[in-house]
Amino acid sequence: VNIDIPTFADIESAAAVLAPYAVETPLIENHDLNARVGGRVLLKLETMQRTGSFKFRGAFNRISRIAPAERANGVVAFSSGNHAQGVAEAAALFSIPALIVMPKDAPAAKVEGTRARGAQVVFYDRLSEDREAIASRICSERGATLIRPFDDRYVVAGQGTVGLEIARAAAARGITLDAVLAPCSGGGLIGGIALAISHLSPATRIYCVEPENFDGMRRSLAAGARIAAPGGKLSVADALMAPVPGEIPFAIAQRLLTKTFAIKDEDLLEAVRYAARTLKVVVEPGGAAALAILISNDFKLENGCAAVVLSGGNCDVVR
Amino acid sequence: VNIDIPTFADIESAAAVLAPYAVETPLIENHDLNARVGGRVLLKLETMQRTGSFKFRGAFNRISRIAPAERANGVVAFSSGNHAQGVAEAAALFSIPALIVMPKDAPAAKVEGTRARGAQVVFYDRLSEDREAIASRICSERGATLIRPFDDRYVVAGQGTVGLEIARAAAARGITLDAVLAPCSGGGLIGGIALAISHLSPATRIYCVEPENFDGMRRSLAAGARIAAPGGKLSVADALMAPVPGEIPFAIAQRLLTKTFAIKDEDLLEAVRYAARTLKVVVEPGGAAALAILISNDFKLENGCAAVVLSGGNCDVVR
Repeated sequence: VNIDIPTFADIESAAAVLAPYAVETPLIENHDLNARVGGRVLLKLETMQRTGSFKFRGAFNRISRIAPAERANGVVAFSSGNHAQGVAEAAALFSIPALIVMPKDAPAAKVEGTRARGAQVVFYDRLSEDREAIASRICSERGATLIRPFDDRYVVAGQGTVGLEIARAAAARGITLDAVLAPCSGGGLIGGIALAISHLSPATRIYCVEPENFDGMRRSLAAGARIAAPGGKLSVADALMAPVPGEIPFAIAQRLLTKTFAIKDEDLLEAVRYAARTLKVVVEPGGAAALAILISNDFKLENGCAAVVLSGGNCDVVR
Repeated sequence: VNIDIPTFADIESAAAVLAPYAVETPLIENHDLNARVGGRVLLKLETMQRTGSFKFRGAFNRISRIAPAERANGVVAFSSGNHAQGVAEAAALFSIPALIVMPKDAPAAKVEGTRARGAQVVFYDRLSEDREAIASRICSERGATLIRPFDDRYVVAGQGTVGLEIARAAAARGITLDAVLAPCSGGGLIGGIALAISHLSPATRIYCVEPENFDGMRRSLAAGARIAAPGGKLSVADALMAPVPGEIPFAIAQRLLTKTFAIKDEDLLEAVRYAARTLKVVVEPGGAAALAILISNDFKLENGCAAVVLSGGNCDVVR
């Protein structure tokens, strides 16, 4: 693994590459939510990103950096579904083949979304098989490029454009952000956001939220080294079950994160319902983790202003 | 009824009054939708307006024009639920009492939303009672001001700010709009939008969509005079069942609308599902009417660019 940490210039470069293809997603405010949490919340709707999650950003940026001569051999990725769809969509835009290794229990919406974008899907058993080994074997057979979900300079830089957009939109409205909160699995999103926000708005505190028992980032930061969360019973947040944070995200997090939170499944599901009922947004359980920590009152806003990333909306709940 | 048609200056004035209170709602693009309809669609998400529909705009603007001495007597409105919540929220911001006359079959989410904003709710039977007569009687008993849902200069001007935002956001992105489409019931929204768009983007064609058998605007324009649609079986679009268009909206529509469409209930429900699944937006059946006419392929975009208003998201479908 290359622990080449992206620079702020890498994030700006990613933004330039993405501009014609990605959605600059809305940053919206909801009065009922503000009243409920006692502060001002700016919701970054990555649910409305191309493919329904932020993952398109990193995938497209990464694939854009493959040397033209190597592109024809295609790309391979492993993912429970959001990175899968991001890679499939980006590969289709470059007209190259994509193969995605997905868990057998992935939500139907994510499997359908991946296939609909022209990618080949190979299933594995989340509890008994090693998805990285399967993906690596296929890569070497085909000469294809592995698009890692988070431990890659260009993937993290691509996800960092979420932070770039948040910081610039807040500044354009004259808003000073006290905090930015985002969900965390391997840490590509929060790592990229932390790099962008710390550069553009150094006084803003940065937080991430993981599911209980899949809180590898929280445990690793406490231990001072990357360690695995206990895992066990699958979380409703199918997108947030990486057991260990990536090397690049962990190195960034050690330097830039204020605190990490672990959240219960029932709070994730309550946040999903709240988003549909009050915000009129379809968000998947994992995508709602940062919102959940606010509405469960575990994070106290205390009249401050926070940007909260709703990172994906690909779920079978609402069909 | 005062058929005082608002001017463009009235819409600008409404925008100024609303700026600190309303949400400037997102205007988003979705690549899957563009590919499906063969053109470019900018979705105006009034689902994310305060109270979950565009109705807050007109209600707040109208209440802001009540003379201070009369405000204490409060306001009364009749509504199936979106105007109800808009009036209740606006009245609460002015700290004045609100009473809303609602049909007994109004969606639970709308009744709850109205009461949660502090308004008193009085029910009536949609098929056997006259809601306007009930509201007028209560108004004269209390000396309260009736906030009409569409036949009011300031209500139409308030709804017109949707058109103002669409035109300005499109211009800021260098986009020329071939068409704007919005749902229609009494016509306050499409009337206000038509005034704003025709002023700022005169070449843009303006269309509205009504439910089948509740297509009073379509029939009235064909007849050259306001006539009632047949009605009958209730539509799934509870927000779009005004039998006759308002006088102000009809006068505007005669001058500025290119065409009106009638849409089937099944196409409205398909649009609601499409919005949840693909756009990640919760939209109510009536709010999805303009989207439905596009995805049902009744409206041909032919590589053009259209702004489509998703006018409200207050439904019991997703809970």
